[in-house]
Amino acid sequence: MKPMEIEQKSFEIIGRELGGKKLAAGTEEIVKRVIHTTADFDYADNLVFSENVVALLKKAFSEGCTIVTDTMMAKAGISKATAERLGIGIRCFMSDEDVAAEAKRRGITRAAVSMERAAALQEPCVFAIGNAPTAILSLLECVRAGKAHPIAVIGVPVGFVHVCESKEELLASGIPCIVAKGRKGGSNVAAAICNAILYSIVQRG
Amino acid sequence: MKPMEIEQKSFEIIGRELGGKKLAAGTEEIVKRVIHTTADFDYADNLVFSENVVALLKKAFSEGCTIVTDTMMAKAGISKATAERLGIGIRCFMSDEDVAAEAKRRGITRAAVSMERAAALQEPCVFAIGNAPTAILSLLECVRAGKAHPIAVIGVPVGFVHVCESKEELLASGIPCIVAKGRKGGSNVAAAICNAILYSIVQRG
Repeated sequence: MKPMEIEQKSFEIIGRELGGKKLAAGTEEIVKRVIHTTADFDYADNLVFSENVVALLKKAFSEGCTIVTDTMMAKAGISKATAERLGIGIRCFMSDEDVAAEAKRRGITRAAVSMERAAALQEPCVFAIGNAPTAILSLLECVRAGKAHPIAVIGVPVGFVHVCESKEELLASGIPCIVAKGRKGGSNVAAAICNAILYSIVQRG
Repeated sequence: MKPMEIEQKSFEIIGRELGGKKLAAGTEEIVKRVIHTTADFDYADNLVFSENVVALLKKAFSEGCTIVTDTMMAKAGISKATAERLGIGIRCFMSDEDVAAEAKRRGITRAAVSMERAAALQEPCVFAIGNAPTAILSLLECVRAGKAHPIAVIGVPVGFVHVCESKEELLASGIPCIVAKGRKGGSNVAAAICNAILYSIVQRG
Protein backbone atom coordinates (compact mmCIF):
# COMPACT_ATOMS: atom_id res chain seq x y z
CA MET A 1 0.00 0.00 0.00
CA LYS A 2 1.28 3.44 -0.93
CA PRO A 3 1.45 6.19 1.70
CA MET A 4 -1.47 8.22 0.32
CA GLU A 5 -3.59 5.06 0.05
CA ILE A 6 -2.95 4.31 3.74
CA GLU A 7 -4.11 7.80 4.65
CA GLN A 8 -7.18 7.56 2.43
CA LYS A 9 -8.14 4.20 3.91
CA SER A 10 -7.66 5.62 7.41
CA PHE A 11 -10.01 8.50 6.68
CA GLU A 12 -12.59 6.07 5.30
CA ILE A 13 -12.45 4.05 8.51
CA ILE A 14 -12.77 7.21 10.60
CA GLY A 15 -15.74 8.37 8.54
CA ARG A 16 -17.43 4.99 8.91
CA GLU A 17 -16.88 4.83 12.66
CA LEU A 18 -18.12 8.36 13.16
CA GLY A 19 -21.36 7.01 11.67
CA GLY A 20 -24.20 9.50 11.69
CA LYS A 21 -22.29 11.90 13.95
CA LYS A 22 -23.21 15.49 13.03
CA LEU A 23 -20.14 17.68 12.53
CA ALA A 24 -20.50 21.39 11.86
CA ALA A 25 -20.17 22.28 8.18
CA GLY A 26 -16.58 22.99 7.22
CA THR A 27 -15.11 21.34 10.31
CA GLU A 28 -15.18 17.70 9.13
CA GLU A 29 -11.67 17.65 7.68
CA ILE A 30 -10.21 19.11 10.85
CA VAL A 31 -12.05 16.76 13.21
CA LYS A 32 -11.14 13.74 11.08
CA ARG A 33 -7.47 14.71 10.87
CA VAL A 34 -7.28 15.14 14.64
CA ILE A 35 -8.81 11.67 15.08
CA HIS A 36 -6.35 10.37 12.47
CA THR A 37 -3.50 11.82 14.55
CA THR A 38 -4.69 10.52 17.92
CA ALA A 39 -6.96 7.53 17.16
CA ASP A 40 -9.17 9.17 19.76
CA PHE A 41 -12.80 9.68 18.80
CA ASP A 42 -13.37 11.92 21.84
CA TYR A 43 -12.29 14.79 19.60
CA ALA A 44 -15.51 14.45 17.62
CA ASP A 45 -17.20 15.87 20.72
CA ASN A 46 -14.40 17.94 22.25
CA LEU A 47 -13.54 20.26 19.39
CA VAL A 48 -15.38 23.57 19.42
CA PHE A 49 -15.20 26.14 16.64
CA SER A 50 -16.05 29.80 17.01
CA GLU A 51 -18.24 31.18 14.25
CA ASN A 52 -16.54 31.40 10.89
CA VAL A 53 -13.11 30.53 12.30
CA VAL A 54 -12.30 27.91 9.66
CA ALA A 55 -12.89 30.36 6.80
CA LEU A 56 -10.83 32.95 8.66
CA LEU A 57 -7.94 30.51 9.11
CA LYS A 58 -8.07 29.44 5.47
CA LYS A 59 -7.86 33.07 4.40
CA ALA A 60 -4.99 33.82 6.79
CA PHE A 61 -3.01 30.76 5.72
CA SER A 62 -3.68 31.52 2.04
CA GLU A 63 -2.26 34.98 2.59
CA GLY A 64 0.90 33.61 4.18
CA CYS A 65 0.42 34.63 7.80
CA THR A 66 2.85 33.55 10.51
CA ILE A 67 1.98 30.56 12.72
CA VAL A 68 3.26 30.81 16.31
CA THR A 69 3.46 27.59 18.31
CA ASP A 70 4.14 27.01 22.00
CA THR A 71 6.34 23.93 21.46
CA MET A 72 9.07 22.88 19.06
CA MET A 73 7.05 19.67 18.67
CA ALA A 74 4.03 21.47 17.22
CA LYS A 75 6.35 23.45 14.96
CA ALA A 76 7.97 20.20 13.77
CA GLY A 77 4.56 18.64 13.18
CA ILE A 78 3.25 21.28 10.80
CA SER A 79 3.84 20.38 7.16
CA LYS A 80 6.86 22.47 6.26
CA ALA A 81 6.54 21.89 2.51
CA THR A 82 2.92 23.05 2.47
CA ALA A 83 3.58 26.03 4.72
CA GLU A 84 6.50 27.11 2.54
CA ARG A 85 4.39 26.94 -0.60
CA LEU A 86 1.99 29.43 0.96
CA GLY A 87 4.74 31.68 2.29
CA ILE A 88 3.85 30.84 5.88
CA GLY A 89 6.57 31.19 8.49
CA ILE A 90 6.37 29.05 11.63
CA ARG A 91 7.81 30.61 14.78
CA CYS A 92 8.44 29.17 18.21
CA PHE A 93 10.34 31.00 20.93
CA MET A 94 10.41 28.15 23.46
CA SER A 95 14.01 27.09 22.88
CA ASP A 96 15.45 30.60 22.84
CA GLU A 97 18.02 30.88 25.57
CA ASP A 98 16.94 34.34 26.67
CA VAL A 99 13.34 33.12 26.99
CA ALA A 100 14.46 30.37 29.37
CA ALA A 101 16.54 32.86 31.36
CA GLU A 102 13.70 35.37 31.64
CA ALA A 103 11.20 32.68 32.63
CA LYS A 104 13.51 31.43 35.37
CA ARG A 105 14.11 34.95 36.66
CA ARG A 106 10.38 35.75 36.80
CA GLY A 107 9.36 32.29 38.04
CA ILE A 108 6.88 31.79 35.20
CA THR A 109 6.74 29.29 32.35
CA ARG A 110 8.81 29.62 29.21
CA ALA A 111 5.51 29.33 27.33
CA ALA A 112 4.22 32.52 28.93
CA VAL A 113 7.38 34.45 28.03
CA SER A 114 7.25 32.97 24.51
CA MET A 115 3.80 34.43 23.98
CA GLU A 116 4.99 37.88 25.05
CA ARG A 117 7.77 37.60 22.46
CA ALA A 118 5.29 36.52 19.82
CA ALA A 119 2.99 39.40 20.70
CA ALA A 120 5.75 41.77 19.67
CA LEU A 121 5.84 40.39 16.10
CA GLN A 122 4.60 42.90 13.58
CA GLU A 123 3.13 40.47 11.03
CA PRO A 124 -0.37 38.88 11.17
CA CYS A 125 -0.23 35.77 13.39
CA VAL A 126 -2.26 32.65 14.07
CA PHE A 127 -1.39 31.01 17.39
CA ALA A 128 -1.32 27.22 17.69
CA ILE A 129 -1.09 26.30 21.37
CA GLY A 130 -0.95 22.58 22.08
CA ASN A 131 0.85 22.31 25.34
CA ALA A 132 0.78 25.09 27.90
CA PRO A 133 -2.35 26.65 29.39
CA THR A 134 -0.03 29.42 30.59
CA ALA A 135 0.61 30.24 26.93
CA ILE A 136 -3.10 30.91 26.44
CA LEU A 137 -3.37 32.92 29.65
CA SER A 138 -0.30 34.98 28.78
CA LEU A 139 -1.56 35.59 25.25
CA LEU A 140 -4.99 36.68 26.54
CA GLU A 141 -3.25 39.14 28.86
CA CYS A 142 -1.31 40.58 25.91
CA VAL A 143 -4.56 40.92 23.97
CA ARG A 144 -6.30 42.68 26.84
CA ALA A 145 -3.33 45.05 27.13
CA GLY A 146 -3.63 45.81 23.41
CA LYS A 147 -0.22 44.28 22.75
CA ALA A 148 -1.31 41.25 20.71
CA HIS A 149 -3.80 41.01 17.86
CA PRO A 150 -4.06 37.33 16.89
CA ILE A 151 -6.08 36.54 13.78
CA ALA A 152 -7.19 33.37 15.53
CA VAL A 153 -6.04 30.98 18.25
CA ILE A 154 -5.93 27.20 18.04
CA GLY A 155 -6.18 26.49 21.76
CA VAL A 156 -5.65 22.81 22.46
CA PRO A 157 -3.28 22.55 25.44
CA VAL A 158 -3.34 19.28 27.33
CA GLY A 159 -3.24 18.52 31.00
CA PHE A 160 -4.63 18.66 34.48
CA VAL A 161 -3.84 22.05 35.99
CA HIS A 162 -5.48 25.26 34.68
CA VAL A 163 -6.03 23.59 31.30
CA CYS A 164 -9.84 23.51 31.17
CA GLU A 165 -10.04 27.00 32.66
CA SER A 166 -7.61 28.46 30.11
CA LYS A 167 -9.72 27.05 27.30
CA GLU A 168 -12.95 28.38 28.76
CA GLU A 169 -11.31 31.79 29.09
CA LEU A 170 -10.21 31.69 25.46
CA LEU A 171 -13.72 30.72 24.34
CA ALA A 172 -15.20 33.59 26.35
CA SER A 173 -12.70 36.12 25.00
CA GLY A 174 -14.40 36.63 21.66
CA ILE A 175 -11.14 35.87 19.82
CA PRO A 176 -11.78 33.58 16.84
CA CYS A 177 -10.66 30.15 18.03
CA ILE A 178 -10.69 26.39 17.82
CA VAL A 179 -10.64 24.74 21.23
CA ALA A 180 -10.47 21.14 22.43
CA LYS A 181 -12.71 21.32 25.47
CA GLY A 182 -11.62 19.45 28.56
CA ARG A 183 -8.21 18.09 29.43
CA LYS A 184 -7.25 16.62 26.10
CA GLY A 185 -5.17 18.19 23.36
CA GLY A 186 -1.48 18.28 22.57
CA SER A 187 1.21 19.53 20.24
CA ASN A 188 0.22 16.79 17.80
CA VAL A 189 -3.39 18.00 17.88
CA ALA A 190 -2.35 21.63 17.31
CA ALA A 191 -0.21 20.57 14.35
CA ALA A 192 -2.97 18.34 12.94
CA ILE A 193 -5.45 21.22 12.97
CA CYS A 194 -2.97 23.46 11.14
CA ASN A 195 -2.25 20.69 8.63
CA ALA A 196 -5.94 20.01 7.96
CA ILE A 197 -6.38 23.64 7.00
CA LEU A 198 -3.15 23.75 4.98
CA TYR A 199 -4.11 20.61 3.05
CA SER A 200 -7.54 22.06 2.29
CA ILE A 201 -5.79 24.96 0.54
CA VAL A 202 -2.88 23.17 -1.15
CA GLN A 203 -3.25 19.71 -2.64
CA ARG A 204 -0.34 17.50 -1.57
CA GLY A 205 1.67 15.78 -4.28
CA MET B 1 2.37 28.48 40.28
CA LYS B 2 5.86 27.63 39.08
CA PRO B 3 6.37 25.24 36.17
CA MET B 4 7.69 22.34 38.25
CA GLU B 5 4.83 22.79 40.73
CA ILE B 6 2.30 22.51 37.89
CA GLU B 7 3.91 19.27 36.77
CA GLN B 8 4.02 17.90 40.31
CA LYS B 9 0.35 18.76 40.88
CA SER B 10 -0.52 17.11 37.55
CA PHE B 11 1.21 13.90 38.55
CA GLU B 12 -0.61 13.93 41.89
CA ILE B 13 -3.95 14.21 40.10
CA ILE B 14 -3.00 11.39 37.72
CA GLY B 15 -1.93 9.19 40.63
CA ARG B 16 -5.18 9.89 42.45
CA GLU B 17 -7.36 9.17 39.41
CA LEU B 18 -5.49 5.96 38.65
CA GLY B 19 -6.70 4.91 42.10
CA GLY B 20 -5.82 1.36 42.97
CA LYS B 21 -4.80 0.55 39.40
CA LYS B 22 -1.95 -1.98 39.46
CA LEU B 23 0.98 -0.90 37.29
CA ALA B 24 3.98 -3.20 36.81
CA ALA B 25 6.93 -2.29 39.02
CA GLY B 26 9.23 0.21 37.36
CA THR B 27 6.68 1.27 34.75
CA GLU B 28 4.72 3.79 36.84
CA GLU B 29 6.73 6.85 35.84
CA ILE B 30 6.40 5.99 32.17
CA VAL B 31 2.66 5.32 32.28
CA LYS B 32 2.03 8.49 34.28
CA ARG B 33 4.11 10.64 31.95
CA VAL B 34 2.24 9.32 28.92
CA ILE B 35 -1.07 10.14 30.63
CA HIS B 36 0.37 13.57 31.50
CA THR B 37 1.15 14.10 27.81
CA THR B 38 -2.20 12.92 26.45
CA ALA B 39 -4.69 13.31 29.34
CA ASP B 40 -5.79 9.88 28.20
CA PHE B 41 -6.09 7.21 30.90
CA ASP B 42 -6.46 4.47 28.28
CA TYR B 43 -2.67 4.27 28.35
CA ALA B 44 -2.83 2.76 31.84
CA ASP B 45 -4.20 -0.34 30.11
CA ASN B 46 -2.65 -0.04 26.65
CA LEU B 47 1.02 0.13 27.51
CA VAL B 48 2.80 -3.22 27.49
CA PHE B 49 6.40 -3.73 28.60
CA SER B 50 8.56 -6.67 27.65
CA GLU B 51 10.46 -8.20 30.55
CA ASN B 52 13.19 -6.02 31.94
CA VAL B 53 12.88 -3.45 29.14
CA VAL B 54 12.81 -0.42 31.44
CA ALA B 55 16.10 -1.41 33.11
CA LEU B 56 17.58 -2.07 29.69
CA LEU B 57 16.52 1.36 28.42
CA LYS B 58 17.86 3.09 31.53
CA LYS B 59 21.22 1.40 31.01
CA ALA B 60 21.31 2.25 27.29
CA PHE B 61 20.38 5.91 27.90
CA SER B 62 22.90 6.14 30.76
CA GLU B 63 25.59 4.93 28.40
CA GLY B 64 24.71 7.53 25.78
CA CYS B 65 23.14 5.38 23.08
CA THR B 66 21.56 6.93 19.99
CA ILE B 67 17.78 7.39 19.84
CA VAL B 68 16.27 7.00 16.36
CA THR B 69 12.79 8.46 15.81
CA ASP B 70 10.39 8.10 12.88
CA THR B 71 9.23 11.73 12.97
CA MET B 72 10.81 15.12 13.46
CA MET B 73 8.01 15.71 15.97
CA ALA B 74 9.17 12.91 18.24
CA LYS B 75 12.73 14.14 17.91
CA ALA B 76 11.62 17.66 18.86
CA GLY B 77 9.67 16.30 21.83
CA ILE B 78 12.57 14.52 23.50
CA SER B 79 14.28 16.67 26.13
CA LYS B 80 17.37 17.91 24.33
CA ALA B 81 19.06 19.24 27.46
CA THR B 82 18.70 15.92 29.26
CA ALA B 83 19.77 13.86 26.26
CA GLU B 84 22.83 16.05 25.78
CA ARG B 85 23.87 15.64 29.41
CA LEU B 86 23.95 11.88 28.87
CA GLY B 87 25.73 12.11 25.53
CA ILE B 88 22.67 10.80 23.68
CA GLY B 89 22.30 11.72 20.03
CA ILE B 90 18.81 11.86 18.53
CA ARG B 91 18.57 10.94 14.85
CA CYS B 92 15.67 11.15 12.42
CA PHE B 93 16.04 10.55 8.70
CA MET B 94 12.49 11.51 7.71
CA SER B 95 13.28 14.95 6.34
CA ASP B 96 16.37 13.90 4.37
CA GLU B 97 15.82 14.73 0.74
CA ASP B 98 17.33 11.50 -0.53
CA VAL B 99 15.02 9.50 1.77
CA ALA B 100 11.98 11.20 0.23
CA ALA B 101 13.33 10.56 -3.27
CA GLU B 102 14.03 6.89 -2.61
CA ALA B 103 10.62 6.37 -0.98
CA LYS B 104 8.87 7.91 -3.96
CA ARG B 105 10.88 5.80 -6.41
CA ARG B 106 10.13 2.56 -4.53
CA GLY B 107 6.50 3.50 -3.74
CA ILE B 108 6.98 2.92 -0.02
CA THR B 109 6.81 5.24 2.96
CA ARG B 110 9.62 7.57 3.96
CA ALA B 111 9.39 5.97 7.39
CA ALA B 112 10.33 2.59 5.95
CA VAL B 113 13.34 4.01 4.11
CA SER B 114 14.30 5.95 7.26
CA MET B 115 14.52 2.74 9.23
CA GLU B 116 16.80 1.18 6.62
CA ARG B 117 19.09 4.20 6.97
CA ALA B 118 19.02 3.90 10.74
CA ALA B 119 19.82 0.19 10.53
CA ALA B 120 23.10 1.11 8.87
CA LEU B 121 24.23 3.16 11.89
CA GLN B 122 27.15 1.57 13.68
CA GLU B 123 26.41 2.79 17.22
CA PRO B 124 23.97 1.18 19.70
CA CYS B 125 20.44 2.42 18.99
CA VAL B 126 17.07 2.60 20.69
CA PHE B 127 14.19 3.14 18.26
CA ALA B 128 11.27 5.39 19.23
CA ILE B 129 8.49 4.91 16.69
CA GLY B 130 5.41 7.04 17.28
CA ASN B 131 3.87 7.45 13.89
CA ALA B 132 4.34 4.89 11.15
CA PRO B 133 3.55 1.18 11.41
CA THR B 134 5.63 0.82 8.25
CA ALA B 135 8.63 1.97 10.30
CA ILE B 136 8.15 -0.97 12.66
CA LEU B 137 7.61 -3.43 9.80
CA SER B 138 10.68 -2.15 7.96
CA LEU B 139 12.80 -2.29 11.11
CA LEU B 140 11.67 -5.86 11.84
CA GLU B 141 12.67 -6.83 8.31
CA CYS B 142 16.12 -5.32 8.86
CA VAL B 143 16.42 -7.27 12.13
CA ARG B 144 15.42 -10.54 10.47
CA ALA B 145 17.97 -9.89 7.73
CA GLY B 146 20.63 -9.38 10.39
CA LYS B 147 21.06 -5.74 9.35
CA ALA B 148 19.69 -4.04 12.48
CA HIS B 149 20.37 -4.80 16.13
CA PRO B 150 18.19 -2.44 18.18
CA ILE B 151 18.77 -2.43 21.93
CA ALA B 152 15.04 -1.89 22.33
CA VAL B 153 12.08 -0.51 20.40
CA ILE B 154 9.48 1.91 21.72
CA GLY B 155 6.66 0.97 19.36
CA VAL B 156 3.75 3.35 19.72
CA PRO B 157 2.59 4.25 16.20
CA VAL B 158 -0.95 5.58 15.90
CA GLY B 159 -3.66 4.92 13.39
CA PHE B 160 -6.08 2.70 11.62
CA VAL B 161 -4.24 0.73 8.94
CA HIS B 162 -1.69 -1.99 9.82
CA VAL B 163 -1.08 -0.28 13.18
CA CYS B 164 -2.35 -2.95 15.56
CA GLU B 165 -0.75 -5.70 13.45
CA SER B 166 2.65 -3.98 13.42
CA LYS B 167 2.57 -3.74 17.20
CA GLU B 168 1.59 -7.39 17.62
CA GLU B 169 4.43 -8.35 15.31
CA LEU B 170 6.89 -6.31 17.35
CA LEU B 171 5.65 -7.92 20.57
CA ALA B 172 6.05 -11.38 19.05
CA SER B 173 9.55 -10.63 17.74
CA GLY B 174 11.33 -11.09 21.03
CA ILE B 175 12.98 -7.68 20.70
CA PRO B 176 12.86 -5.80 24.02
CA CYS B 177 10.03 -3.30 23.59
CA ILE B 178 7.42 -0.98 24.98
CA VAL B 179 4.20 -1.06 22.96
CA ALA B 180 0.91 0.84 23.14
CA LYS B 181 -1.53 -1.89 22.18
CA GLY B 182 -4.36 -0.97 19.85
CA ARG B 183 -4.72 2.06 17.64
CA LYS B 184 -3.48 4.73 19.99
CA GLY B 185 0.00 6.19 20.24
CA GLY B 186 1.79 9.08 18.63
CA SER B 187 4.99 11.03 18.34
CA ASN B 188 4.11 12.76 21.60
CA VAL B 189 3.72 9.37 23.30
CA ALA B 190 7.05 8.13 21.93
CA ALA B 191 8.77 11.29 23.18
CA ALA B 192 7.04 11.08 26.56
CA ILE B 193 8.28 7.52 27.10
CA CYS B 194 11.85 8.58 26.26
CA ASN B 195 11.56 11.58 28.57
CA ALA B 196 10.22 9.52 31.47
CA ILE B 197 13.29 7.32 31.27
CA LEU B 198 15.66 10.26 30.79
CA TYR B 199 14.19 12.08 33.81
CA SER B 200 14.54 8.95 35.93
CA ILE B 201 18.28 9.04 35.26
CA VAL B 202 18.97 12.78 35.33
CA GLN B 203 17.22 15.09 37.77
CA ARG B 204 15.96 18.20 35.97
CA GLY B 205 16.99 21.58 37.33
